[in-house]
Amino acid sequence: MFRFKQELRIPGPTPVPPQVLAKASSPMVNHRGSVFKEKLPQLARRLQPIFGTTEQIYMVTGSGTAGMEMAVANLVSPGTPVLCLVGGFFGQRWAEICRVFGAEVHELTYPWDTAVNPDQVGDYLRKHPEIEVVFATHNESSTTVLNDIEAVAQARGDHQALLVVDAVSSLGGVPFAMDKWGVDVVVTASQKCLKAPPGLAFVSFSSRAKEKAAANKSRSYYFDLAIYDRYWARHEPPFTPSISLLFAVEEALNILEAEGLESAYARHRLMRDMVRAGVRALGLVPLVADEHASPTVTGVKLDGADEWRTAIRARYGVEFAGGQGPFAGKIFRIGHMGYATPLDMLTSLAVLEMSFAKPGAATTAAELVWSQTK
Amino acid sequence: MFRFKQELRIPGPTPVPPQVLAKASSPMVNHRGSVFKEKLPQLARRLQPIFGTTEQIYMVTGSGTAGMEMAVANLVSPGTPVLCLVGGFFGQRWAEICRVFGAEVHELTYPWDTAVNPDQVGDYLRKHPEIEVVFATHNESSTTVLNDIEAVAQARGDHQALLVVDAVSSLGGVPFAMDKWGVDVVVTASQKCLKAPPGLAFVSFSSRAKEKAAANKSRSYYFDLAIYDRYWARHEPPFTPSISLLFAVEEALNILEAEGLESAYARHRLMRDMVRAGVRALGLVPLVADEHASPTVTGVKLDGADEWRTAIRARYGVEFAGGQGPFAGKIFRIGHMGYATPLDMLTSLAVLEMSFAKPGAATTAAELVWSQTK
Repeated sequence: MFRFKQELRIPGPTPVPPQVLAKASSPMVNHRGSVFKEKLPQLARRLQPIFGTTEQIYMVTGSGTAGMEMAVANLVSPGTPVLCLVGGFFGQRWAEICRVFGAEVHELTYPWDTAVNPDQVGDYLRKHPEIEVVFATHNESSTTVLNDIEAVAQARGDHQALLVVDAVSSLGGVPFAMDKWGVDVVVTASQKCLKAPPGLAFVSFSSRAKEKAAANKSRSYYFDLAIYDRYWARHEPPFTPSISLLFAVEEALNILEAEGLESAYARHRLMRDMVRAGVRALGLVPLVADEHASPTVTGVKLDGADEWRTAIRARYGVEFAGGQGPFAGKIFRIGHMGYATPLDMLTSLAVLEMSFAKPGAATTAAELVWSQTK
Repeated sequence: MFRFKQELRIPGPTPVPPQVLAKASSPMVNHRGSVFKEKLPQLARRLQPIFGTTEQIYMVTGSGTAGMEMAVANLVSPGTPVLCLVGGFFGQRWAEICRVFGAEVHELTYPWDTAVNPDQVGDYLRKHPEIEVVFATHNESSTTVLNDIEAVAQARGDHQALLVVDAVSSLGGVPFAMDKWGVDVVVTASQKCLKAPPGLAFVSFSSRAKEKAAANKSRSYYFDLAIYDRYWARHEPPFTPSISLLFAVEEALNILEAEGLESAYARHRLMRDMVRAGVRALGLVPLVADEHASPTVTGVKLDGADEWRTAIRARYGVEFAGGQGPFAGKIFRIGHMGYATPLDMLTSLAVLEMSFAKPGAATTAAELVWSQTK
């Protein structure tokens, strides 16, 4: 019907605010010059509250997966016993990367429509004192589950294992407290709740993780923490970075700081609750129980979901995401992260209720949720 | 004196044309959607004439070094005997990456102010029939030397070795004929002669290189050619790519195609010749003899080069690059690649002649070169 305005409601990349896009068009600067030497440490400082850390934050030119590989390349050697918590596509990715790097991979699998049970993690670790690193997923966007990383971190007890967390689709939209929870490595990316274009990953290492990395010979050059540190010490990136995207992320942080982190977290929770109330009002069933539901993306059961999505996109200009793995064709996912507001949820639900011939039903339920929210 | 217009004359990133910068601000799209499925193969096809190949060209979200690591990760296993041709910073980088990946690294070093001697490469290979891959640098931007890759490729004779070439700072500004010369892997990046922002690398593999990669277990996940191929088959990137920069590169290719590749090559040669005539007219000495001089960057000997550069930048708003390795503080480098024209060389030389109290001397010499060029 119309193609000039397409609403992206996928779990990343999210729409990017015009003012952020505009900054991606800033004139080029020398990445070894004075402008950049100021910007790099400044950016790290501004990201720290989002990670919940006082540690250094490294900017890596690459996808979120590049950030994940940076964690593995610096902490894993051939034979390193690791535990990957696998309950979705991105948990699997940890295991796959670890295998490529020669780790002895233990997998604790959990059902793809629920969160990992921290007690099971604790039990597993007690039975396997040799495990050196646990790889977990904060927000498993493939299953729309939010895992309780604080509880997973605590479940380690006095076990030696480092905890590495993929927080790609949560940071900036969901609270995270790396230092307080005792998380050792956190990975995120530019195109999710930070609402900038994709192409940059951000990674932070605790002192314990840095010690382990220093004792471990990195099996990558591009991701070698030692090389990063050598350059970072003089406020320089080791390799020519995505300069345009750094400018964009700066502006995205301006927006996030003006909103305030607590407000951003509340906005994501509200969007989640509106979407869940809305789809239920249509008789549809969310994939995940309320207690494990992601604040940034919601999965909804629907047979023939992919054909439906194609039709929806053509008719209403709204792009939802499909299912992955066992859920391919059986669910659709509504992204509500980054540059998304409760009003955007009303239009997303409007599309749903029209397509199911129940005008007003879902939006009414969602508006009730919003009205009752302080 | 003025800060609102700073002229970047470094060997990358180069200035980016406003129309290319503007495209980096395009609205976000789904990287698994229909728009992107058209764009990815289209981009590869448009890059093929620049590589001089009919092979697939892969887009990697990362720096040029990421592209280099992609080549190594797919071709090198622990113990693989490789020969790195090292006559500068980026030749060294090949050797460093290969060592990280466990290769048995042979280094054929050549002086940092000249090109590699193809005969020596041939001799070395005949003495070492076990060498499986040769890693070379087309344009060694650290020393401002252009290596004769066609001759290096021929010097292999019937030796088995694959030839992998870093063409990061040459492709789009200097002719390259991957297929005709028999080069097996070529790596380039977005921010040099292609005149887009940094953040994307492009890598092509010959069928022989693909066979070797298939027999070799990739020691990276992010750079695994098999994963790329699996996604590429359905016109998708494996990981969320730098979508904004792809839009920018498309516009940069519009500009390059409108100019024509042969004209672009002639423009780079002309800029090189103007700069060399200009600096010589001031009594300065280029680092490299004419026969090996890079068409994209010129090194000039100067004691105290770094202090001079700082002063020049502050006073005239022109940013030259310094020396690297043994040349740190002893040379400066004038970038003339990508979004740079002969007129920009006149302003670069104007700054030089003013700073050396010889107004008109360098620009006059350069204008003579230009006037005598058809």
